[in-house]
Amino acid sequence: MTTPSKTELQYTGKAKNVYGTTDPDLVWIEFTDGATAFNGVKRAQVRDKGEVNARLSAIIFERLDASGVPTHLASTPSPTVHICHRVQIIPVEVVVRNIAAGSLSKRLGIAEGTALDRPLVEFFYKSDALDDPLVNDDHALLFGWAQAWELAYLRHAALEVNDFLRAFWDEFDLTLVDFKLEFGRALAPDRRGQILLADEITPDGSRLWEKGTQRRFDKDVFRRDLGDLGDTYRELFRRVFGQRLHAG
Amino acid sequence: MTTPSKTELQYTGKAKNVYGTTDPDLVWIEFTDGATAFNGVKRAQVRDKGEVNARLSAIIFERLDASGVPTHLASTPSPTVHICHRVQIIPVEVVVRNIAAGSLSKRLGIAEGTALDRPLVEFFYKSDALDDPLVNDDHALLFGWAQAWELAYLRHAALEVNDFLRAFWDEFDLTLVDFKLEFGRALAPDRRGQILLADEITPDGSRLWEKGTQRRFDKDVFRRDLGDLGDTYRELFRRVFGQRLHAG
Repeated sequence: MTTPSKTELQYTGKAKNVYGTTDPDLVWIEFTDGATAFNGVKRAQVRDKGEVNARLSAIIFERLDASGVPTHLASTPSPTVHICHRVQIIPVEVVVRNIAAGSLSKRLGIAEGTALDRPLVEFFYKSDALDDPLVNDDHALLFGWAQAWELAYLRHAALEVNDFLRAFWDEFDLTLVDFKLEFGRALAPDRRGQILLADEITPDGSRLWEKGTQRRFDKDVFRRDLGDLGDTYRELFRRVFGQRLHAG
Repeated sequence: MTTPSKTELQYTGKAKNVYGTTDPDLVWIEFTDGATAFNGVKRAQVRDKGEVNARLSAIIFERLDASGVPTHLASTPSPTVHICHRVQIIPVEVVVRNIAAGSLSKRLGIAEGTALDRPLVEFFYKSDALDDPLVNDDHALLFGWAQAWELAYLRHAALEVNDFLRAFWDEFDLTLVDFKLEFGRALAPDRRGQILLADEITPDGSRLWEKGTQRRFDKDVFRRDLGDLGDTYRELFRRVFGQRLHAG
């Protein structure tokens, strides 16, 4: 595949900008250094965050693709860019939890750190205006956010991704507490009916606790002022890639 | 059945007190005039409320029983008392909605009064301390609140009750907007495995809007200070029973 060129800006996100490309079926996603928490109330610029997230998400998406979970990632022309198959994002965010933390602990009164007997899957309606409320299958079906088979696929794929990610992070001495996924319907005519894992898998939308120390290697460092987020992400990069970010 | 006698107070609720009886498989439930809203933050005593609710819930439960939905109601020895089969309450409250209102409107940004294409079923974890949070099937299964077959039954029975109640209230020129149900596992040995509709069906846990005027005939009158709750409930009684509460 020849790399298409970037065209007009189509969408500005909290930590990514999305552009069109010269190929109508592909988009150009640039990871930025923006950090936000509490639905955009807390904001910062964190040097290297875009690159760490882009490279982590790329290696994870490539391995997931190879292990049978199709993703939107087509190629990575530079360290902060993902060229992706164009999708229509399904407005149902999928969260998988192995250990109680964050909103689950608050909502159901379960002490943070409580191991769950098996992975828990939650759906949230993707809406900044409503602060991404928890929903059930019936909401998604009734309000037309997804079809029943799509919800079944989301749940299945999310649990597959969980199995993969637990093993992936385990190798770096990290416990996968929980993570968020987004999926999209592929829009290219020859991919009709395909649901692709989209967005990103990064420590922005995951909780990663170092085994033993419980040190946080995720955006909770920023949310809860536990240290320097840039240092944390660069250290995570070093562990995964076996070298410093700007080494060489 | 001989009516058993009331024994010790076992539980004091917001609008009901539960006593034991001389029959270990039966409980004695007294409807009181207590009114609460916002998880007990707003409170009042409303004359006749206990009797209106007890008599409305009794006629509805009797008809549901006759039409194939088993309930906990065994007999009504006095106007404010239900003698009921002892159950273990399933801590999953079931809400059925035909029209958007209340927490659904707030949570998902759907204008109050929006008709839903079909009835929506929601489960809430019964916990005053947590303010009855919305949950999905997976929460209920993982945390052991109910089995999968029980959730399937709850959903099925709730939709049956909805069909019945829509027709019931329609006869009195009222639109059933939404309502809450509780279910319990029958504890008598000869009723093992039976799930009984429990608690009550009253305007405390339902929304009833008069056709045309949209006048509220439910606890929203109290929650939102729309008028006198006692007058409202007495008027509802008059419509359903065709006579004034203390007539004759």
